[in-house]
Amino acid sequence: MITGKLYIISAPSGAGKTSLVKQLIADMDQLTVSVSHTTRSMRDGEEHGRDYFFVSVDEFKKMIEREAFLEYARVFDNFYGTAKQTVEETLAAGSDVILEIDWQGAQQVRKMIPDCLSIFILPPSIAVLQQRLKGRGQDSDEIIARRMRDAVTEMSHYGEFDYLVVNDDFQQALAELQSIITANRLMKKRQQQQLAGLLPELLGQV
Amino acid sequence: MITGKLYIISAPSGAGKTSLVKQLIADMDQLTVSVSHTTRSMRDGEEHGRDYFFVSVDEFKKMIEREAFLEYARVFDNFYGTAKQTVEETLAAGSDVILEIDWQGAQQVRKMIPDCLSIFILPPSIAVLQQRLKGRGQDSDEIIARRMRDAVTEMSHYGEFDYLVVNDDFQQALAELQSIITANRLMKKRQQQQLAGLLPELLGQV
Repeated sequence: MITGKLYIISAPSGAGKTSLVKQLIADMDQLTVSVSHTTRSMRDGEEHGRDYFFVSVDEFKKMIEREAFLEYARVFDNFYGTAKQTVEETLAAGSDVILEIDWQGAQQVRKMIPDCLSIFILPPSIAVLQQRLKGRGQDSDEIIARRMRDAVTEMSHYGEFDYLVVNDDFQQALAELQSIITANRLMKKRQQQQLAGLLPELLGQV
Repeated sequence: MITGKLYIISAPSGAGKTSLVKQLIADMDQLTVSVSHTTRSMRDGEEHGRDYFFVSVDEFKKMIEREAFLEYARVFDNFYGTAKQTVEETLAAGSDVILEIDWQGAQQVRKMIPDCLSIFILPPSIAVLQQRLKGRGQDSDEIIARRMRDAVTEMSHYGEFDYLVVNDDFQQALAELQSIITANRLMKKRQQQQLAGLLPELLGQV
């Protein structure tokens, strides 16, 4: 019976987290990203159960009451949360699970699942971050300045994370994320589960 | 000031450790294998300081007395040991260091340097191990049986190691060793040293 590992991946906007996680999931077996619950409306092209589980505010609040979330947050008028059950079932089935959440969610999850591992993705420089946050040049200076402040607030929590990955070159950052997940699959405790057939054979115990 | 990590790599004879470590060193930067001291005679093609530091029994015993070794062992009439100073200087220069030692040496080193990481390499099956230990078919059954017993004794200590790597496919085992070393270089404590310029810049502290 192999148990998966829970990974938290956080980053400021503009660090490239979403693209990296998408490619990581596509490249590696036994690795899934957790689908969050939200009370916001479904947008064009989104799918219930793939992008989010879309629920009513009432349903969401009931889930909070029965402590069904590993973490949740209110962002303006909408709630977002990670359901405990989905994550636990996926881990129990032997798959590693990634949560894409912010530093506040990360703090909540660490309390609930202390042996999770958390990764913080950083931009390669403040200039690159500013460039990425400017987007297509259609936003006001005020909006860009607010994004920048939010990014700095998020980054100020990097010290709470187990691993730091700099996204300068996309392929290198991707390879580094893969290394973290691969290395943790090679740890003795996990390998004793994965090699439950081989180890007794090698020691003449079969 | 970046400090390197000390890795212990152990394996039974026939697991392919030496070839893997050789390739690993060739492929990765800032990674060296520690050169041991020995009292045995130099063989053709060997070089002092590259293959071993060849010293007299008297010199070796003096090094034991002044606690100059991280670990040492007597194998028949010869002594083998890892000098503390060489390892510590290499780590202090920011390079990771690999020690190729057996489970007994590993136990000694863990006591001296508790934050080292140890990796045990396993063969993919008992049949493959037997095949490899038979060598070129020029050894007696008795010698092969002794090698097999020694290999099983060595393997019985796999549980003392942090990571287990199975050497079935050489390239995969090599990639797994690289992942372990890469992942540990991405850990926060190490990255805070490596990113000592970037982190204050991102947080507006410069």
